[in-house]
Amino acid sequence: MQTYIDTYKAMRKRLNAYGYAMWILEWDLETDHPSGAIDYRAEQIEVLSNEIYALETDKKYVKAIDHLYTNLDKISDDLLKREIKKIEKEMRLIKKMPKQEYIDYQVLLSKSTSIWSKARQKDDFECFLPTLEKIITYQRKIVRYLQTPELKGYDVLLDLHEEGMTTKEYDAFFEDLRTELVPFVLTATSGKKPLSRRLTKNVFPLYKQKKFNMYLTDVFKFDLNHGVVRTSNHPFTSNFSSFDVRIATRYIENSIESAIFSTIHEMGHGIYEQNINPALKDTYLAQGSSMGMHESQSRMYENMIGRSFAFWEVHYDYLKDIFDKELKNVSLLEFYQYINRAERSIIRTEADELTYPLHIMVRYEIEKLLISGKLKPKDVAKRWKRLYQQYVGIRPKDDKDGVLQDIHWAAGSFGYFPTYALGSAYAAQIFYAMNKDFNVENAISDNKIEKINTWLKENIHQYGQTKTPKELILLATKEPFNSTYYIEYLKRKFSS
Amino acid sequence: MQTYIDTYKAMRKRLNAYGYAMWILEWDLETDHPSGAIDYRAEQIEVLSNEIYALETDKKYVKAIDHLYTNLDKISDDLLKREIKKIEKEMRLIKKMPKQEYIDYQVLLSKSTSIWSKARQKDDFECFLPTLEKIITYQRKIVRYLQTPELKGYDVLLDLHEEGMTTKEYDAFFEDLRTELVPFVLTATSGKKPLSRRLTKNVFPLYKQKKFNMYLTDVFKFDLNHGVVRTSNHPFTSNFSSFDVRIATRYIENSIESAIFSTIHEMGHGIYEQNINPALKDTYLAQGSSMGMHESQSRMYENMIGRSFAFWEVHYDYLKDIFDKELKNVSLLEFYQYINRAERSIIRTEADELTYPLHIMVRYEIEKLLISGKLKPKDVAKRWKRLYQQYVGIRPKDDKDGVLQDIHWAAGSFGYFPTYALGSAYAAQIFYAMNKDFNVENAISDNKIEKINTWLKENIHQYGQTKTPKELILLATKEPFNSTYYIEYLKRKFSS
Repeated sequence: MQTYIDTYKAMRKRLNAYGYAMWILEWDLETDHPSGAIDYRAEQIEVLSNEIYALETDKKYVKAIDHLYTNLDKISDDLLKREIKKIEKEMRLIKKMPKQEYIDYQVLLSKSTSIWSKARQKDDFECFLPTLEKIITYQRKIVRYLQTPELKGYDVLLDLHEEGMTTKEYDAFFEDLRTELVPFVLTATSGKKPLSRRLTKNVFPLYKQKKFNMYLTDVFKFDLNHGVVRTSNHPFTSNFSSFDVRIATRYIENSIESAIFSTIHEMGHGIYEQNINPALKDTYLAQGSSMGMHESQSRMYENMIGRSFAFWEVHYDYLKDIFDKELKNVSLLEFYQYINRAERSIIRTEADELTYPLHIMVRYEIEKLLISGKLKPKDVAKRWKRLYQQYVGIRPKDDKDGVLQDIHWAAGSFGYFPTYALGSAYAAQIFYAMNKDFNVENAISDNKIEKINTWLKENIHQYGQTKTPKELILLATKEPFNSTYYIEYLKRKFSS
Repeated sequence: MQTYIDTYKAMRKRLNAYGYAMWILEWDLETDHPSGAIDYRAEQIEVLSNEIYALETDKKYVKAIDHLYTNLDKISDDLLKREIKKIEKEMRLIKKMPKQEYIDYQVLLSKSTSIWSKARQKDDFECFLPTLEKIITYQRKIVRYLQTPELKGYDVLLDLHEEGMTTKEYDAFFEDLRTELVPFVLTATSGKKPLSRRLTKNVFPLYKQKKFNMYLTDVFKFDLNHGVVRTSNHPFTSNFSSFDVRIATRYIENSIESAIFSTIHEMGHGIYEQNINPALKDTYLAQGSSMGMHESQSRMYENMIGRSFAFWEVHYDYLKDIFDKELKNVSLLEFYQYINRAERSIIRTEADELTYPLHIMVRYEIEKLLISGKLKPKDVAKRWKRLYQQYVGIRPKDDKDGVLQDIHWAAGSFGYFPTYALGSAYAAQIFYAMNKDFNVENAISDNKIEKINTWLKENIHQYGQTKTPKELILLATKEPFNSTYYIEYLKRKFSS
């Protein structure tokens, strides 16, 4: 037994180091990497993927995991037990997918986001289509390799991103939201006062935006000693270990809120990762519990803290100091109403809290159809526009801000989007529970976000993947997941 | 024979991919990497260094190189022949240094520049001293492993950076400069007109500096499709292949010239690498010929082009547009005189052309003493100040801008500095030869720097390491290296 454990840990150490290198290579690709070197990079990635593949399929390593998995009951270390369950599940793909296919897919992914990025800049879906087709073909193969009697089709991919969630649960969840929210949205978005043109039609110089965003990292106590905040084309958080957590923000000159709220959102992800117990660092469990749980944190920071009136009562003066000309005569209330306006919009990452799940429903619907084969990739751009009209009530004019707006499909992520909507619902339930322990609004008013960070660290963050999302929800809120907190929260906020 | 060649090429391909990954990890360390993750990173680097070490010392690979080296005359491919000679020389260290020692040294180097950077920020030499001591101990060991009957002591390190150059040649070269330049400097730096306070005592906002620097990349036709320009603590150029060449610039708010000339300098290095024949990409020869040849390019771009009157006749108006307030009433002539003032200064990278070699002499002197053991690392900071007084005529007030100003020793580079002075001398000789083919000043006046890029590409850059610096000098200038062009150039420029 001990020999297998030693073999496992020795290989894990090597694989972690390769994983670290590949992570930095990926970060570099999304930030500094020049486009003319994509092919050269891909050649190197191909070689490195081969090296990693050889390690991951090393007979001794596979045998050790198989042995430990079939003898789980004999492992006394609970953490190791949990880790072996996880890694055995993850290894299934690499065991079943032929080597060359696996390598080819990695090489494809190493180029695909940059092709997407160019296509997006040129508003040219056709230019991205061949790549998308290849990725979907691979996704459908992955489904076939991983399916079990219990999990089939798209459910396989959903489960990969949020354990235990399938089309059955998601269909019900979205149906709930549709029934409760769609009529409510109609009321909430009608009869609005016009917004100040200083907010809606203005230029907010990037260097000023960057200054305020650096201020926000301090307000939220995002640890820059173990983190990075910088600019890229698409906002995202990326980390390897709790020691190195990186946030990329996108700045838009015509929007004062875009960078602010995407930075706060990404800091929610980032603070989660920074708070994971550092003792887990060499294991495979040093990550957030699930995609949905991750999104619950980012959306809580973004919406429930960052868009609260209490928050801007404290920080609006400084924002006005920086944007002295741009925000002249714009009152706190006007600003608050602006950042909390509910409207039918085109861009998911810019969407308000209320209509956000409708954006997700479009993607969920399309993914279901693509994976089942009922929709061809070439028809996605058209379907996207139709579904936006149908669910969000607005039709994108182009593909740049339509089907090309998200990086996820280009990065091979299918089954990920639905966790975004689920995360908002988790967030409402967790926020409600936190309020039983202390007055969260007061913490925000006192500019003590660290009190919130600490509560979340104790009740959720620290555990990493040592607990499932279901276990965490129960532990932190003392009851199972329940979407009513979310619906109540939205109705309360958008009625006032 | 062919089997050995195939083995060699297959291993080279793998090692190139690892080299690429380590290069990105290094770039990341110097740019984005957060300081709190240094230890975690070092653990991963240790594992990866072990992997690379295993490949580099792989018996089949070593045997292939040994076989090819002892049968060089049987290799028909001249490029391969050259490459084998190079790699055999480079392999000597890894063959002679015990494995654990080699790994330990790599781990040390993975942390040392960040320790240096902190020490520099805090102006705390003592905090860097233990690291410096370790590095020098390793350097002295490297000397012992590599010495031959012909090359001993510091000469071993000098030869590693510039083939064929030893203390004998460098002593003579520096003696020449000392004899010719020191008395000249005395005249050139006396009786100067006072400079405008708008140039010497002013604040030049960083966002404006960045704007002008991006303009410069276009003027010099630095290819951003195969390159990156960004900010770091220390200006440097770093690349892997001609497809991905990265420049880091340091911005100083109180200096209008610092970022401009360090960017032009680094673009000189960068354009060299971008111009190397892409057909060499998978070989070990796809790099600049030598450190000195590299520096000849960077210093030619910086000083002979970038500080010329012809250059600023074209570009000064745009600089004034950007710095409309800051440069109000500052004439072109005043600006030109400012950027070409000769004075005794503290920072090497900010030093003028005329006094620059004196900065190098300090470092050369100290390195000689450190490697011979005649000077202890703990006494370096003191000796630095004394030598600055003696050679440069000015005494640094602190260590931050004294012994801690350069990254080189922290990165384990000894024997590198002297090539900087040598490079300036190469540059003058090459510039003189280029002028025989076309009027370089006219190309600058016509804003056609690409003509210069093309000549240098044809006569020097494209060859990479397929030619030695001696061969290149002869090829490009039709005569062997000769320091009189350099001395004449400086005297002519600083007399006028």
